[in-house]
Amino acid sequence: MIEKHLEDFVRGLMFPPRLVAAIEYGLLGGGKRLRPLLAWHSARAVGGDGASSLRACTAVELIHAFSLVHDDLPAMDNDDLRRGRPTLHVYDGEAMAILAGDAMLSLGFHALIDHPEAGLALRLCRELAAGTEGMIAGQVYDTLGGLPDDAPEDRRLELIHKNKTGALIRASCRMGAACGGAPDDSPAMAGVTAYAEAVGLMFQVVDDLLDVTQPRERVGKRTNKDATSGKVTYPSVMGIEASWRVVKDLERKALGAIAPLGQAAGGLADLARSMARRDR
Amino acid sequence: MIEKHLEDFVRGLMFPPRLVAAIEYGLLGGGKRLRPLLAWHSARAVGGDGASSLRACTAVELIHAFSLVHDDLPAMDNDDLRRGRPTLHVYDGEAMAILAGDAMLSLGFHALIDHPEAGLALRLCRELAAGTEGMIAGQVYDTLGGLPDDAPEDRRLELIHKNKTGALIRASCRMGAACGGAPDDSPAMAGVTAYAEAVGLMFQVVDDLLDVTQPRERVGKRTNKDATSGKVTYPSVMGIEASWRVVKDLERKALGAIAPLGQAAGGLADLARSMARRDR
Repeated sequence: MIEKHLEDFVRGLMFPPRLVAAIEYGLLGGGKRLRPLLAWHSARAVGGDGASSLRACTAVELIHAFSLVHDDLPAMDNDDLRRGRPTLHVYDGEAMAILAGDAMLSLGFHALIDHPEAGLALRLCRELAAGTEGMIAGQVYDTLGGLPDDAPEDRRLELIHKNKTGALIRASCRMGAACGGAPDDSPAMAGVTAYAEAVGLMFQVVDDLLDVTQPRERVGKRTNKDATSGKVTYPSVMGIEASWRVVKDLERKALGAIAPLGQAAGGLADLARSMARRDR
Repeated sequence: MIEKHLEDFVRGLMFPPRLVAAIEYGLLGGGKRLRPLLAWHSARAVGGDGASSLRACTAVELIHAFSLVHDDLPAMDNDDLRRGRPTLHVYDGEAMAILAGDAMLSLGFHALIDHPEAGLALRLCRELAAGTEGMIAGQVYDTLGGLPDDAPEDRRLELIHKNKTGALIRASCRMGAACGGAPDDSPAMAGVTAYAEAVGLMFQVVDDLLDVTQPRERVGKRTNKDATSGKVTYPSVMGIEASWRVVKDLERKALGAIAPLGQAAGGLADLARSMARRDR
């Protein structure tokens, strides 16, 4: 249903055909749909229907896809491979990659604003803006620096990751929970938010670990690039085994945060477990 | 008031300081504030208070500024001068120009979503999305082609301009009118929309004309670039004098559309007249 809603949304756009094709390439070319799944299962975790989160699913995946397309650009990470295929700027040129990314960013908001409940639509837009802007801030820290010089290295890493990956994962979970009917100040929303913060950081630590421990063929993108680009990562700061211990701690924290939600949070629990695996 | 609201909005951001500085550079470095002025005077034209449009003013200027920063990038128009200063990617690097542009796009929506009236906030977001996406579609046509091959040249030009410049100008006016209290289906909204469509096209024709007829020092950006880059423009298709006649026709059309709104539309009328001038 998530995939179908994404496809229908993109194919319904009244855009230049070449722009639609570029957006399809960036958005529909595989991907694990982790953020939509988090939104879907967050809606269920608070007692709602997964399908109530479909607009939110489409929105967060558009924002995620935009960020990949722009991050891959030569002036940014300069990646030529993504999900086992040439990146969009390799496939259709840098200008199109910039413009298609811009379009996907705007479409993220666009996907929310025809929601029949105005109050909920606005809440979703607020969460999406926070997630998008947190992600961009994290990317600035990661790519261009500017963190407080006196912060210890593990604190700097946490600040980067909390924003770069964590903000949109947090938004995905909170948007799903809002669609599922959880008020902003409810214990259910607090539980989902604490879960999201733990899995968001965990996801990035595992990503850093896969970058040093997996061959390129397995991951579908260039690996070992963190070391060659001199970026600080969890494994580079605290070593591989200690990083896996951090992963395990964060998994426990995530599962604890949603334990009070009982059976309904089973989907979120499964997601946390699969995100913590070495062979994900 | 428009300038102050923009400044306060940007300076209140909890962003990395270097990102805030880049956004300030792109957003607060002069500029005529045409789109905010159109929003402001559209609010007044429908009988509202100009100040009711301040969120809309900030939103449309953020989107305009984002588009300039990304359009100036080497992979796009490759411009090194804007408003008489180095463009953002020359000043602070391409990565920052990409990220600051992305941030400004998201902030455009962000600027609207704390509006106390949820229904109005959503209407404004809808108009902003339409304006932003129309602008991006126009940029795709202009930079990368893809227009229907059988369309005559003046029709192709109109399609490019209607989107590239026209969509955001239309959104600015409609957002202002919405803030001023005009319902979507009111004659006042229809008048403001027709005005916006005329001045949007007029603006681009005058811009093309200034590109061939003014020296760089006067315009504050590289001129005569359309001819050297082989872009089709109004002067290149129909000549300079005929293009000025188009400007005059569009000015008359714009003024006619808001005539029923009487005195209240005086600000919009003045703006149309000043936009039609050769020495604007």
